[in-house]
Amino acid sequence: MKDAPMYIPTYEDMLAAHDRIRPHIRRTPVLTSDHLDDLTGAKLFFKCENLQEPGAFKVRGASNAVFGLDEDQARLGVATHSSGNHALCLSYAAGRRGIPCNVVMPKTAPQAKKDAVRRYGGQVTECEPSTSSREEVFARVQQETGGEFVHPYNDPRVIAGQGTCSKELMEQTEGLDIVTAPIGGGGMISGTCLTLSTLAPEVQIIAAEPEQADDAMRSFKAGHIIADDAPETIADGLKVPLKDLTWHFVSNHVSDILTASEEEIVEAMKITWKYLRIVMEPSCAVPLAVILKNRERFAGKRVGVVVTGGNVDLDRLPWMAG
Amino acid sequence: MKDAPMYIPTYEDMLAAHDRIRPHIRRTPVLTSDHLDDLTGAKLFFKCENLQEPGAFKVRGASNAVFGLDEDQARLGVATHSSGNHALCLSYAAGRRGIPCNVVMPKTAPQAKKDAVRRYGGQVTECEPSTSSREEVFARVQQETGGEFVHPYNDPRVIAGQGTCSKELMEQTEGLDIVTAPIGGGGMISGTCLTLSTLAPEVQIIAAEPEQADDAMRSFKAGHIIADDAPETIADGLKVPLKDLTWHFVSNHVSDILTASEEEIVEAMKITWKYLRIVMEPSCAVPLAVILKNRERFAGKRVGVVVTGGNVDLDRLPWMAG
Repeated sequence: MKDAPMYIPTYEDMLAAHDRIRPHIRRTPVLTSDHLDDLTGAKLFFKCENLQEPGAFKVRGASNAVFGLDEDQARLGVATHSSGNHALCLSYAAGRRGIPCNVVMPKTAPQAKKDAVRRYGGQVTECEPSTSSREEVFARVQQETGGEFVHPYNDPRVIAGQGTCSKELMEQTEGLDIVTAPIGGGGMISGTCLTLSTLAPEVQIIAAEPEQADDAMRSFKAGHIIADDAPETIADGLKVPLKDLTWHFVSNHVSDILTASEEEIVEAMKITWKYLRIVMEPSCAVPLAVILKNRERFAGKRVGVVVTGGNVDLDRLPWMAG
Repeated sequence: MKDAPMYIPTYEDMLAAHDRIRPHIRRTPVLTSDHLDDLTGAKLFFKCENLQEPGAFKVRGASNAVFGLDEDQARLGVATHSSGNHALCLSYAAGRRGIPCNVVMPKTAPQAKKDAVRRYGGQVTECEPSTSSREEVFARVQQETGGEFVHPYNDPRVIAGQGTCSKELMEQTEGLDIVTAPIGGGGMISGTCLTLSTLAPEVQIIAAEPEQADDAMRSFKAGHIIADDAPETIADGLKVPLKDLTWHFVSNHVSDILTASEEEIVEAMKITWKYLRIVMEPSCAVPLAVILKNRERFAGKRVGVVVTGGNVDLDRLPWMAG
């Protein structure tokens, strides 16, 4: 069976998404730190998506998908596979609409994440931590429930939702030269591209990636998607590969992809906790790590930094590791 | 020598303070959490003073004192004794005005706090960790420098400055029933009393105190100041006693003082980090601990909670203690 032609979400889709999800998300604050500005030589504006109720920007795309369903489909609910914030956020959005949400999660996913999905009313089905098991279990769950599949990032509704974040960032700041965000599957970056390519095409979009999971950077340089099998990085939200839809945005609108080492990521995470005084995931620290590492590139610039999520295990902070 | 009669700052002093300090402080955001609301049965509004640049509400009172000095006094600078956030914040404010700041700190004060004072341009003079040494060293420093003494809390300029926090909180929220804040020396609570007794006298003011440093609660019940010698609590900002000026506000305007155990404070701190996703000091967790412990008192109410500061040692978090 041939895939349907890919639908590329438009700026109007993003505007419609914002109207649709506004009652269900927070307009998160933009925080600044004179001290971090001094350290980097740049003027940084942190868009704090970790302060969304379920703790991640993914509530935007998930809410857009959930609240965009017609009544017939909504009755059957939604379904996805994810070990991370997309599972939480889709459950949260489905819970707000009062419809079923089925999530396939690997047995090895953190208990705290499974608990959060259930707290929001989602149903967890466990699979083995392999792609084949996940696909098999997910196909069965979807067949049994009829739930609408909402991919964590390779979905036009999700990307249109994520694009609302940089729309708000542009409303909350003035004269940005650069927006930077972490890149994993590319959902946030694609939403950023979608919005800024129309709203503010003069703003550079720089993606930040862990050295140890640098498939997006290598894809960007090679001109086609390179997917790694099982990269290992402390930035656990960024292990997944680009897909066709996110590759479209990355290849067309991203100015550059820069990388940072594990050590640089942990250091950037710690100084953000210390000076910005927010709780955020290792993934969110990759942009600051990249800014600190490429001072000449960012100094003197006004830089928007998307802080993507804040669901961390407070008993296992990376600088505590013995 | 007889003390001068005590000057009680007025609502107009608070308004003047706000105009004076506005360029030097942040209008900090008010954050909410549906999950913490569910846990407490109340509707909570967290005024995040930990997000001030130097990380504490004390920048308000310190800035009011510093920017209120006339030119002659300003040339000689300011001086104080403090092992905590007041030292940081006074140095920060003095640095912004470009005037000297001398701080007497006990040798035993955390190195990170001394470093922060110096980073802001303050001059640290160390004393022994005793009241007699502190007073002796401070008298010498003040005589040598001529710096204007700015007490951490028993100072009308400082209290008027702290009062600007609840003014903003009232502007940022609607229909509050209660405002709660931690109490140590009583600076924040006094500022809250100063502002709300005029602006919103129907709002109850409830102070929150560690059981292990409950001198304010006992003073409140006894009707006169009781000062303990050296209370020990993880809420290290709250060890100091009330003084005449803060006692004036506490005894006249506070509805109640409630206490929480060390264990309850640490638990409340951890759930705030987890669900509100901010970095805050143990002292700031006392109000939430008190709300969780006295559910019947707060359930169904709209409650403003002042998050007082966010300068913590990330290598020594209390739930990590072995």
